[in-house]
Amino acid sequence: MSYTNGHLKETAQVDEQSVQPFPNSKKIYIEGSRPDIRVPMREISLSPTTGSFGNEENEPLRVYDTSGPYTDPEASIDVRKGLNPQRNAWIDERNDTDVLSELSSDYGRMREADLSLENLRFDLQRKPRRAKEGKNVTQMHYARQGIITPEMEYVAIRENMKLAEMREQLQLNEQHPGHSFGAAIPQEITPEFVRSEIARGRAVLPANINHPEIEPMIIGRNFLTKINGNIGNSALGSSIEEEVAKMTWGIRWGADTIMDLSTGKNIHETREWIIRNSPTPVGTVPIYQALEKVNGVAEDLTWEVFRDTLIEQAEQGVDYFTIHAGVRLAYVPLTAKRMTGIVSRGGSIMAKWCLAHHKESFLYTHFEEICEIMKAYDVTFSLGDGLRPGSVYDANDEAQFAELETLGELTKIAWEHDVQCFIEGPGHVPMHMIKENMDKQLRECGEAPFYTLGPLVTDIAPGYDHITSGIGAAMIGWYGCAMLCYVTPKEHLGLPNKDDVKTGIITYKIAAHAADLAKGHPAAQVRDNAMSKARFEFRWEDQFNIGLDPDTARAYHDETLPKESAKVAHFCSMCGPKFCSMKISQEVRDLDEAQVAAINAKAEEGMQEKSKEFLDTGSKIYHEV
Amino acid sequence: MSYTNGHLKETAQVDEQSVQPFPNSKKIYIEGSRPDIRVPMREISLSPTTGSFGNEENEPLRVYDTSGPYTDPEASIDVRKGLNPQRNAWIDERNDTDVLSELSSDYGRMREADLSLENLRFDLQRKPRRAKEGKNVTQMHYARQGIITPEMEYVAIRENMKLAEMREQLQLNEQHPGHSFGAAIPQEITPEFVRSEIARGRAVLPANINHPEIEPMIIGRNFLTKINGNIGNSALGSSIEEEVAKMTWGIRWGADTIMDLSTGKNIHETREWIIRNSPTPVGTVPIYQALEKVNGVAEDLTWEVFRDTLIEQAEQGVDYFTIHAGVRLAYVPLTAKRMTGIVSRGGSIMAKWCLAHHKESFLYTHFEEICEIMKAYDVTFSLGDGLRPGSVYDANDEAQFAELETLGELTKIAWEHDVQCFIEGPGHVPMHMIKENMDKQLRECGEAPFYTLGPLVTDIAPGYDHITSGIGAAMIGWYGCAMLCYVTPKEHLGLPNKDDVKTGIITYKIAAHAADLAKGHPAAQVRDNAMSKARFEFRWEDQFNIGLDPDTARAYHDETLPKESAKVAHFCSMCGPKFCSMKISQEVRDLDEAQVAAINAKAEEGMQEKSKEFLDTGSKIYHEV
Repeated sequence: MSYTNGHLKETAQVDEQSVQPFPNSKKIYIEGSRPDIRVPMREISLSPTTGSFGNEENEPLRVYDTSGPYTDPEASIDVRKGLNPQRNAWIDERNDTDVLSELSSDYGRMREADLSLENLRFDLQRKPRRAKEGKNVTQMHYARQGIITPEMEYVAIRENMKLAEMREQLQLNEQHPGHSFGAAIPQEITPEFVRSEIARGRAVLPANINHPEIEPMIIGRNFLTKINGNIGNSALGSSIEEEVAKMTWGIRWGADTIMDLSTGKNIHETREWIIRNSPTPVGTVPIYQALEKVNGVAEDLTWEVFRDTLIEQAEQGVDYFTIHAGVRLAYVPLTAKRMTGIVSRGGSIMAKWCLAHHKESFLYTHFEEICEIMKAYDVTFSLGDGLRPGSVYDANDEAQFAELETLGELTKIAWEHDVQCFIEGPGHVPMHMIKENMDKQLRECGEAPFYTLGPLVTDIAPGYDHITSGIGAAMIGWYGCAMLCYVTPKEHLGLPNKDDVKTGIITYKIAAHAADLAKGHPAAQVRDNAMSKARFEFRWEDQFNIGLDPDTARAYHDETLPKESAKVAHFCSMCGPKFCSMKISQEVRDLDEAQVAAINAKAEEGMQEKSKEFLDTGSKIYHEV
Repeated sequence: MSYTNGHLKETAQVDEQSVQPFPNSKKIYIEGSRPDIRVPMREISLSPTTGSFGNEENEPLRVYDTSGPYTDPEASIDVRKGLNPQRNAWIDERNDTDVLSELSSDYGRMREADLSLENLRFDLQRKPRRAKEGKNVTQMHYARQGIITPEMEYVAIRENMKLAEMREQLQLNEQHPGHSFGAAIPQEITPEFVRSEIARGRAVLPANINHPEIEPMIIGRNFLTKINGNIGNSALGSSIEEEVAKMTWGIRWGADTIMDLSTGKNIHETREWIIRNSPTPVGTVPIYQALEKVNGVAEDLTWEVFRDTLIEQAEQGVDYFTIHAGVRLAYVPLTAKRMTGIVSRGGSIMAKWCLAHHKESFLYTHFEEICEIMKAYDVTFSLGDGLRPGSVYDANDEAQFAELETLGELTKIAWEHDVQCFIEGPGHVPMHMIKENMDKQLRECGEAPFYTLGPLVTDIAPGYDHITSGIGAAMIGWYGCAMLCYVTPKEHLGLPNKDDVKTGIITYKIAAHAADLAKGHPAAQVRDNAMSKARFEFRWEDQFNIGLDPDTARAYHDETLPKESAKVAHFCSMCGPKFCSMKISQEVRDLDEAQVAAINAKAEEGMQEKSKEFLDTGSKIYHEV
């Protein structure tokens, strides 16, 4: 790809790879209680079972779809215009927001007035919204008042997929009961259940009133495990169009939320482009931009600069903010004996500030003021783990757990403000120490959703940290972690390109899905069962299409057996056509009752002979000295 | 690569990629109690710590090395001649074997006499060995007589690496205690411990007397977790030279054993080339070749054909045989209701035979005769799981567990013959059902080593089954599994090429190492600690070199920061040079006691202010409705 930033508002184009429909799939929309609740899903058509395997149609498989309108051939996509602001009507109806005549942040207004940015600015038509004086516009606030918002109904339908119907397709829906470590996953996700989980703080529905383009989703241990994909430019490079392409590419493969971690040029404008085109919630780490505003000198940061950044980003529509308010002055010296010190960028910025000023962190001391901002826009807290371990050696140490306890304290304050809140977690943790993290987080933070980076279960495989972390992610997802932040193969080494983003996302979809199977989410095993049935029946095209990455599966199959005829062949490359494992299984299925009875009689007979043989030969065989 | 099979004994060449030494590494040999016990290890030189991080040398890191002489620049490698048969003297000394004047198997003699095979035959100089009449030459037999063989001493040194010395390098050797689920891993691996574990059947040392070229290794839950790489041709292709290259390539990246699963042409000759050039134990599934001998018609198999195949392969030097003796007639109908029937190729061959003849499996009824063969060559049993689940749906079902119980019964019979034995396991199992497999295996099989394929924790990601299975492999390794059979990205889709082999191996090295960390193997965390220290100190070259795959790590780093200067830069591509997380940690380390005391006083003061603030504002903040 080669991009220019010149005259973006005229030239910007969507990434072509991100708008291809998935093979044999169509986008469908399930209507809720009102016509403007239209929940997208992807339906994969399957071929019929034929030949020796029987004769039956296979119902299309419905899968959760994060890719937004990009994969809907009916949708008109123009990244210069952004997505349809479908939530606007819902927000209007609530009648608790004002449309502002101008941006409230100094920085936002400054950028707006800067004519030199014309060429790379998104052509913004909208004006920002803010809660009316004294109003609280968070989904948690509504939930606690007993209100089921359209957003809540939307996620109930979305999580539920087609459970009731699927249950009727017996074999495909049969599944192992799971072991959920005390989660409370219901058999059917109702809008009321969604509301109650949000009210209780056990789930969040990140949905800034300034991001009306989102397709609502929910994060909580009693729902499908979610994954986040990080994008963002750095001082070393990447253009706006590239970042938008990484976003559309990431959600195509399954990112449930996107974090824009830009630290390079034109952060404000890059973010606007991403948000206006993102159907998933967007998170940021505002301290990164605040640091840019003070020329990278951490000790020059002030509450005022940070506050203005929060407002600036909230009015753009950022759905959740990572805020490292748990890095307290007293915890900084606890990191002195670590192998890898403080590895969180946000954490180290705050540690530097605390040390330079010999003062408690302004994020901590101003936490209630931050809450006031969050509730005016419904921005969700992602309480950052600034002291997470950067090595197996540092896992679960005093600094890490001291911060987690403070995050628990802050969670309760956020909840007192009806502000939605989830908690970030590590990092680098060997397998046997992962559960302690999950258990402590649930306990300290009152079951507020946990959101972890991996964890990486070993440090020794740079280039493969999507895998070292995917192992830990699957496990902590099973134990109750609600969202898994992806790690790409470039972790610790460089900036991810599009291939790395895809590899990271697919790895994390695997981890999240494995967690859903293990915790017993009632919608989880249907897809595995559909895949396995297709595999058994040699429906090759169905196997590719049901998989998380049809393109790669097909390409790998073609490397060995490129001919079209191989895709209907009743054998695979392992055994070849001569002897096939699957065929014998079909013969076993075809046995009738009398045949099975005869087999059992024969087996019993053989058993008796065998016992006799043992008795006869027993004395001859070698005995232990 | 392009290979021809013409005049192989003159033209065959080693794979060039497999004989490159690892960067900054040298091959060292630790001498045991006699000069011909020379245990190879790889020593990675590290650069010194400099600048703001202090001034100290970093001791070279010693790592377990499976790559054989191929990575030793001093070794002369000629695949046409094979490796040095270093164990011959040890075997001779025991004076319990005969060197045979000719091969004992009909098939072996037939192939030897076939002049048309001249061109692709390995130029074999050696004659086969067999136990003298009435002798048992297994390592288990020696162990039970209290004999510590040179092989046992060799593995003790190999497992131990440099523990005692490493323990002195304090920080690098500090590690988390681990949670081993009742394993009995000692702080120091002694030859006597090795002997006692083999005697007890809790570990195996696969070492056919006809494979004197091996560098002995051990498989057991109280040792480092091992991994196996599968290679082998199929009816659809691959040449002898390619298979040898896959072997040298697989061990380069860390395969502890190699299974040759060839089912295509010239299986006998292919195997000879592999064994003569393999420093790791080689396993096979003899029923595959037996089936070829009866033209792929399972019902035509006979005990005699199978027996001849065992002897043929045992005299070539195969170190372990997968034998599906647990697929009993009565278990076959138990698979009828499965989603994916019988997916093990060996299992389905035997099921077909049982059904066709309405008879108990000849592997089961002739099990004691098989033991007699095994002990005449010291071939280790890998009792095959012919009824392993092929889908999450079928996991832990009656058929699978009935077979496992029979494998437990057969283990005890093998042990009565002093024949070494380990047990194969699944397959496809969701995370929450993995531990049940491990626990049942330990119970039924008296802690004989478990050897599993993955397990894959979900079915929905063809193209990524190295990852779906790497998750399960790491977990079961932690729970006590002794060896993990790798899965490549091509699983379910096609035949792995060299890249796939490497990806599979590295993924499984990660899983095995993560398991060693979690179970608390005393040598495990040193490498993580060395990596983390190098990471913290921005020693980029050391980070690449300590990792499992230096080439990929370096290449990824170069994609973002190609300049040589970036490899000594004290920043990474994440933050860039302006603000760096790692730097602040250094400042924290530099705090003196007085400074820390001042910080704590300040923090305490802040805490009191905060409490006061809460009291003042408490009444104003929003309270739950």
